[in-house]
Parts: sequence; C-alpha cells; structure tokens
Amino acid sequence: MSPPKANILLIGSGGVGTIAALNLEAGNLARVTAVLRSNYHAVTSNGFNITSCDHGILKGWKPSTITNRIPDPTPDSPKYDYIICTTKVITDCPPSTANLIKPAVTPGHTVIVLIQNGLNIETPYFAAFPDNIVLSGISMIDSHEVAPGVIEHGSADDLVIGAFRNPNLDIAVEAAAAERFVGLYSAAGKTKCVLGLDVGYSRWRKLIFNACLNSICALTGLDTGRIRLAGDAVEMLVRPAMEEIRAAAGSVGVDLPGSVCEEVIGAYPVALYLPPSMLEDVWKGNLIEVESIVGEPLRVGRANGVAMPTLSVLYNLLKGVQWRTKEKRGLIEIPAPGSDVADL
Amino acid sequence: MSPPKANILLIGSGGVGTIAALNLEAGNLARVTAVLRSNYHAVTSNGFNITSCDHGILKGWKPSTITNRIPDPTPDSPKYDYIICTTKVITDCPPSTANLIKPAVTPGHTVIVLIQNGLNIETPYFAAFPDNIVLSGISMIDSHEVAPGVIEHGSADDLVIGAFRNPNLDIAVEAAAAERFVGLYSAAGKTKCVLGLDVGYSRWRKLIFNACLNSICALTGLDTGRIRLAGDAVEMLVRPAMEEIRAAAGSVGVDLPGSVCEEVIGAYPVALYLPPSMLEDVWKGNLIEVESIVGEPLRVGRANGVAMPTLSVLYNLLKGVQWRTKEKRGLIEIPAPGSDVADL
Repeated sequence: MSPPKANILLIGSGGVGTIAALNLEAGNLARVTAVLRSNYHAVTSNGFNITSCDHGILKGWKPSTITNRIPDPTPDSPKYDYIICTTKVITDCPPSTANLIKPAVTPGHTVIVLIQNGLNIETPYFAAFPDNIVLSGISMIDSHEVAPGVIEHGSADDLVIGAFRNPNLDIAVEAAAAERFVGLYSAAGKTKCVLGLDVGYSRWRKLIFNACLNSICALTGLDTGRIRLAGDAVEMLVRPAMEEIRAAAGSVGVDLPGSVCEEVIGAYPVALYLPPSMLEDVWKGNLIEVESIVGEPLRVGRANGVAMPTLSVLYNLLKGVQWRTKEKRGLIEIPAPGSDVADL
Repeated sequence: MSPPKANILLIGSGGVGTIAALNLEAGNLARVTAVLRSNYHAVTSNGFNITSCDHGILKGWKPSTITNRIPDPTPDSPKYDYIICTTKVITDCPPSTANLIKPAVTPGHTVIVLIQNGLNIETPYFAAFPDNIVLSGISMIDSHEVAPGVIEHGSADDLVIGAFRNPNLDIAVEAAAAERFVGLYSAAGKTKCVLGLDVGYSRWRKLIFNACLNSICALTGLDTGRIRLAGDAVEMLVRPAMEEIRAAAGSVGVDLPGSVCEEVIGAYPVALYLPPSMLEDVWKGNLIEVESIVGEPLRVGRANGVAMPTLSVLYNLLKGVQWRTKEKRGLIEIPAPGSDVADL
C-alpha cells in the first residue's frame, strides 16, 4: 500500500502557482487544493487551459480541489502538510498572506512554502507561526496567466528549495521538510526542482535581477532586451544598482562573485524582449513588490553601512509609482481638485 | 507718424508661443509671422480659439501671417527683427532649431529670443549666428494647447527676458535689445514681462523646478500636488535633487538661497494637481527635454566636482524613457523579436 498523498494548499494560482500544482499532481504523491480569486469563475467553468514546455497542452485541467476562500479545517478534517504561497508580496498593503492563511495552518505540522521573491519575506510567518517550518522557493520559471485560467509556460520550471533558518526549530528537521518537498515536486520527472540549502545565497542572487532590472525596467518601460540596446543604460544604471545589491549581500556574509552581474544581465537573449514582472505589473496597473524586492535589501545594506545611492533613488521613485496605483485603486483618498488644502 | 512695427517670426505656436504672439500683436508695435506645424490646418481654417486669463475669450484669432514653413526672405523683403523660438528643446534629436531658422536670420540684425527651458541652450545659436544677439526668455505661464489651435491660458504670462552674454558683442547693445523686446511684449499692458539681466540666475532658478519636479513627476506619474501628498517623496527625492541643482548652480557662481527649494515646492496649491510639462509629454508619447533640463545641469555640476547622485539616476532613467519613445516613433530600429543577436 502506498503512503497517503501529501495534502497541499496552494495560495495564488497564476503563472507560477498553477504550474506548481500541475507538477505536484502529476507526480501523484500530492493532492492540491487551490485557492483562486480573480480566476475562480473562469476555472470553475472551464478548468485551466495550459500551454507548457514541460507538460504540453492541457485543456480544462483542474487540481484535486478548487475553492475561492481559505479553508478552515475542522479537527477531524485532514491537516495541510504544506501550504504554498505564490502570491505577490505586497507588504505595504494589508491584509498579509500570513494572516489570511492562519485558519489553515496546523501549529507544529504544516510546512509553509514561499515561492516568492524578495528579502525577509519569512519574518511575518516566523512571527505568526513560531513552530512551523517555512521554506524558501526561488523560481526562475517563465510562466504567465495571459487571461483568467489561461497559462503560458515557456521555460523550464527551475525551482530552488531550502528552509528559512528558524532558530527555534531543528535544522535537520527543516532540511528534511525541504527535501521531502523537492521529492513531491520532482516526482513527475518534468521539472528542475533542486535543494539549495543556502537560502541567503539563492535569494540575494535572485535580487541581483529583481531589485535592479525589475526596478529600472518598470520605471523606463524598457524590457530585458531593450535595456541592453538603449545606449549606456546598462553601464550607468543596471550595473551600478547590481553592484550595490552585491555589496549589501556581502555585508550580511553572502558572497556573490563579481561575475554575477554580467551573468544576470546576459541571462536572456536580447531579442526575447522579456518584460520583467514589475514592468508587467505597472502596465497592468497592479501594485508592485517594491518593499520586498527593493526596500528590504536597501534597508539591510544601509544598516550595514553600504552606500546605495542608485537603489535609493529607484526605491523612492517606485514608492511614488505605488502610491499613485493605490490612489487609482481607491486605497488612498486625496483632497478634491481645487479644494483649499492647508500648506503641508 | 509712428515707427514701423517690429517684424517678428515665431517658431512654435502652442500654449506659450500663441500667447506670445497675442501679446505682441495686441501691443500694436509688432507684426508676427507664426510658423505652424501640427496645428497649421486647424488654424488656417478656424484661427486660434483662445481662453486667456489676460485676454479673455477669442474665437478665430490669427496673427498677421501664418505659414507652415520657415520663410526664406529675398534681399528686398523686410528683415526679421526678432525670431522667437518656443519649441521644445530636444537636442538629442535632429534637426536643431538653430539650423532650421538659418534662412530667416539676417546676420548682425535679427535678435533671436529663446523662450525655452534648460541650460546652455544658446550654444548652437552662438555657433550658427556669431554676430546676432540671443535673448533668454524664462516663462512661468500656465498655457496649453488642448487641441490643435485651441489654447487654454490659466495664469499670468510671467516672462523674464535678458541677453545671453556673447563676448563678441557689446553688452549695452545686448541689453538694449532685451529692453526693446520687453517694451514690445508689454505694450498691450496685459502681461508681466520684465527685464532680468542676470540670465544665469533666472535659468538656474527655473531648473530647480524643471530638473527636479519635471523628472520625478515624469518617472512616477505624480503631479505637483500628489508628489507632496505621497509619503516622503519630497523629503527623499525632490529636496535632495533640488539641493544638487542648487549646488551645481553655486559651482558656476549662481547663488540660489537655501529657501528656494521650499519656495518652488510650495509654488502651486496642492489641489491644483498640476502635471509638469515633462509628465504631460510622457503621457502624450512626446519626446522630452531630457538633455537641456537634466543632462546639461548634471554635466555642469559634475565638471565642477559637485556630487549629484540623485540627478544622475533620474537623468539615466529619463534617457531610457526617451530611447523607448524614439523606438516607438520609428527613430530607432531594433533587432526583430526572436532574431539571433550576437551578445552585446
């Protein structure tokens, strides 16, 4: 008799999350409950329509369960072994995902997997769930939800899993949870999910891309190809920003080699013209992950005396962009045009 | 018998230029030939429709002459006494206005008036017309062409005129030309046109607004009101940028008082929500005056050893925005998507 399947709750089933669900279900060692929001009605009616470099074309695919709210298990219902979060990390706009998932987390049991970008994103989970293991997932996947429930997955699902180090927990147990998750994720044999126990290294390395190319592309409207064609933008903006992130990483003992900036700049062929996710978010009028991928590394570097003049300007400009998006979405109210506002 | 009217050629008849033409014709001491481009057909058919705080509502108004090309006077036709340029200064995109106006300039006679923003904008005119006086006009007008030939003029036409100092010419003759122009411009008694012989002071003071608020608003989408409401944007971006411009001005002997930044930030009531011209240009997909109002003060400050970390990032981001606009307008060609481009 085979062991029972791992019971997995997925928060955020867009480009990244849906392919995660597909990998896990295809491996046959897990059953996935996906919590959907914007695409709930589309997926309830038609399932997911997926074009995937790993899985081929799937029409009407669904994970084991779909729901539109965070489940609140009774004492008799099965515990969630893993809760995977693939939502954007918008820490400057409540509610936090750590708060939302509370009802579904069994203390001391559920392993929380954050397949998300940015630095110190585990902090609210450590605070809310001091006895639960929290795993880091760094995804290099190129997968997008191009319409509700329609997923285009274009490059290998390259995922690095490791545990965020929680000093209250046993490091060996943390590592085992990470290893088990890699096993579940890899069981279908269709993906490049690997263990990467040096979480700090993985996350700072990804920040070389995210904090710099995301920011600069979002502010200029240039994509990863055009930024390399546009005069001296790489020399004057991208490389200085990346060197500041590298120095901030070094200040917390994460040694990224001097070659990393070149590697990241050259990671994609020019003529792919790939818009980084933050540029896509700006185009769509979405909130951006400004605090987790720009603000937080900036604060860490500065606290350690690293000069970060480029990142600082990028950060403050992006905060302005974010403020404007919040205002457009009715999250901020401003004085009526023409009204008599006292000088600020 | 009254003296003959001054013969004036106007290049660029949008929000600023059309009100200039109106002031000059209303004063009855000048006749204006306006060179129109985008609005030529609209104005030929219907004249200008102007709503002006100074002149009231005018329907179908026209200056003495309208044309759609730079005139090329014969030896017998009247010389132009003044050529007024109110076009945007886009030095990174030929042809230059200095080149365009060449046929209409009489060496040693025609006075060129640049009612335009930015630094060192006189340089190409000094090179092309070494024997002609070049005047500086700093306009604080709030006037916009909201549709072809439709002008909305909302605040007093506050114009400061002085001569760009050309060491080949007599300073007294330069000053007299400036004074005469102020006389022509003010003759209708409807405007606030004054002499300001310290051109460096006037231009750097305007740059406190243009180099900083234009740039930051263009990159964030915030206007002059929202930028003051948006968290610490003024503290973290606007004021540091302004202090860098003030220091650059100081490095060439232009002493702007410490209070100038506060004055400029608070110049407009918050609830006016005024989009600076560069933000409007970004919205419209127009090229921006990045070199004359950001690049040039940055180069001047740096050449004198002034640290300008904020302006440098703003400048390089705006160059990225400009590159993208040029590409969208077909002025730059890029490799076809998916083509095999050698690594750069």
